[in-house]
Amino acid sequence: MSASDLSTVRPSAGGATDALRRSNLATILGLVHRDGALSRSDLTRLTGLNRSTVGDLVAELAGLGLVEVDETPGGGRAGRPSPVVRVSDSVVAVAVNPEVDAVIVGLVGLGGRVLKRVRIETASARSATETVTLASAGIAGMLAGESGRRVVGIGVAVPGQVRLSDGMVREATHFGWVDEPLAARLSEATGHRVWAANAAVLGLRAESAFGAGRGVDDLVYMIGGASGIGGGAIGGGRLLTGSAGYAGEFGHTFVRSDGRHCSCGSRGCLEAEVTQAELLEAVGLESAQAPSLGERLAAADDPAALAVIERDYALLQIATRNAVNVFNPSTLVLGGFLAALYRGGRAHGAPDLLAEAVHSSREGVVVSEAALGPDQLLIGAAELVFSELIADPARALAAA
Amino acid sequence: MSASDLSTVRPSAGGATDALRRSNLATILGLVHRDGALSRSDLTRLTGLNRSTVGDLVAELAGLGLVEVDETPGGGRAGRPSPVVRVSDSVVAVAVNPEVDAVIVGLVGLGGRVLKRVRIETASARSATETVTLASAGIAGMLAGESGRRVVGIGVAVPGQVRLSDGMVREATHFGWVDEPLAARLSEATGHRVWAANAAVLGLRAESAFGAGRGVDDLVYMIGGASGIGGGAIGGGRLLTGSAGYAGEFGHTFVRSDGRHCSCGSRGCLEAEVTQAELLEAVGLESAQAPSLGERLAAADDPAALAVIERDYALLQIATRNAVNVFNPSTLVLGGFLAALYRGGRAHGAPDLLAEAVHSSREGVVVSEAALGPDQLLIGAAELVFSELIADPARALAAA
Repeated sequence: MSASDLSTVRPSAGGATDALRRSNLATILGLVHRDGALSRSDLTRLTGLNRSTVGDLVAELAGLGLVEVDETPGGGRAGRPSPVVRVSDSVVAVAVNPEVDAVIVGLVGLGGRVLKRVRIETASARSATETVTLASAGIAGMLAGESGRRVVGIGVAVPGQVRLSDGMVREATHFGWVDEPLAARLSEATGHRVWAANAAVLGLRAESAFGAGRGVDDLVYMIGGASGIGGGAIGGGRLLTGSAGYAGEFGHTFVRSDGRHCSCGSRGCLEAEVTQAELLEAVGLESAQAPSLGERLAAADDPAALAVIERDYALLQIATRNAVNVFNPSTLVLGGFLAALYRGGRAHGAPDLLAEAVHSSREGVVVSEAALGPDQLLIGAAELVFSELIADPARALAAA
Repeated sequence: MSASDLSTVRPSAGGATDALRRSNLATILGLVHRDGALSRSDLTRLTGLNRSTVGDLVAELAGLGLVEVDETPGGGRAGRPSPVVRVSDSVVAVAVNPEVDAVIVGLVGLGGRVLKRVRIETASARSATETVTLASAGIAGMLAGESGRRVVGIGVAVPGQVRLSDGMVREATHFGWVDEPLAARLSEATGHRVWAANAAVLGLRAESAFGAGRGVDDLVYMIGGASGIGGGAIGGGRLLTGSAGYAGEFGHTFVRSDGRHCSCGSRGCLEAEVTQAELLEAVGLESAQAPSLGERLAAADDPAALAVIERDYALLQIATRNAVNVFNPSTLVLGGFLAALYRGGRAHGAPDLLAEAVHSSREGVVVSEAALGPDQLLIGAAELVFSELIADPARALAAA
């Protein structure tokens, strides 16, 4: 039994009742965050708590500005409908996603709703310090005139390896960053609490909460973009972080003997063998046209393009077969250009993506495309902030 | 939030206090099960519960026959030492491990102690029904004259894929079994409750509780035997089962393009490329001499044997690099002939096993050999039984 298991049974300073109340608050807020508007009778049914307890908890959340209660839903109809509880926009998270040629800043409400979004174009090579300066300016601009809203924290989605404990960026090869304390610097610059994590893992969190992985307890996620291939996994309903936060590097799955050299120093990794640039080139698209890649691959009829699709699909098969053998997920979600490659390969009659996985392990596995589109990383970055808020709302608001 | 998360905050039939008491009982029994004898003051310190609560809980566990309390440890010394609590031998699990040429039956006490063990030799090809008959006979024999002991259930370690929900053996290629309801049949035959799981995963559970993975929250385990290569993973302190219980098939990691055909139907899997039989043959050992394989590989000087070691070590490097990139564990444990291969390779100057993993992901990862030896699978099978016992002792004993 680990220390963290033990802590769950330790009476808190306020005693067991207080701990239970906080746990119940978290449950109610988590439900309206993930499932949207729910009637108070839905909440009673879903939590198993009694009606008056739910009423008290909802009132406490409303008092904290986290939910709104509509006492007369469908007003005018007969009967006495149960009041409807939904998340409020008065408490928000800021989300930041540094990309190679831009810094994207968003304002995200509970329920995974992107309320505002700005893309700040930048030079392609820039330091972590410049990124912090740009992001801080963008955040300041975005928050001007938002005095009615309370910012509970900032989440950053980084295309690189990030240490979970303190938001230290260990490596972000596309920026040339090594050991940059990005979260700490952004916190100094803005005065807000800041969390940072790997962008692909945050994509997974977003899809898990609101997209193609919604409600799935055993999920493997792989996403491909201009800067390579990443991913993550959920097992038994919990995000797999690894010991320091670097889990989910599916882009560095070995897929070819004597393969190409990879940025990680090894050879034959999926991310070195299968690239967005080559797929775009095969069908004559520019990088800005990446969103239409899936359609173009599916419609391709040039033999050279078909050969690239066939080769890359077979390599993706190897990486996904490994993942399914090891994780036995119920759903495999593909995002970015991997979704496009999957769609293109299937359109040209490629075999089942998981045909070569172990029979029982692949049984019933659903392969789907990511559902959230370009807002995915902002929503995921905001989840970093909201998960702490939801776990203990009063405490998180006091600390914000 | 999943349904299972919700259930933890639902008040139980007996109310929150009763749930808390059961949780505390589980904590105390779990501690003495995993850590061995502990004084009552240790238990007070480790749980954060107050002294009289710990006293009551220990008394309840003693009343159930699960622990013994030594009121006068180190008697004769000055002062008043705290009573020492240790697991009792009066409640036991039966463990069964069908192998290709034998059925092994054991009696295992709390604390992972194998109290008795018998190996029943059999013909190599046998049906699931014959296995149940032999195991039942062995169990009956073992329990004769053990009237003072209470059997709380039977755990079965199966070299194959087992559905966790009902102990159905989906595939056990070395026996030729497909969809055999092994747990249900053994339960009918013996009158005991029966759990079954994949043998390699149970090896992991044993190493995690009592061996090389003790206290490790992020662990990858790979084990090689006569019937192939299996494994499992622990993430954030929890066993990764996958959606149906088939997670951890590291033997089916792709390690070579155009590689050998594998029993799973694919090609180039670790288990097809790296076999115990070839390593034994390379150093002139019979299969019964497998325990001395590590020493023999380390001492090998024949060029042909060295070439086999070098080739197989490089393939193991690929599989372990994939696993470390995906799981970011703090410890990688190797068992069976994979431990022998690791030892042999290193003795001949092979590079660090994880040299080609992503830099941050491999940082600080400890590679170690499994510690529990041949009892590992019996201890792991008993853990299937004991984990339910520990979670709710009174209820499990009532059901046994």
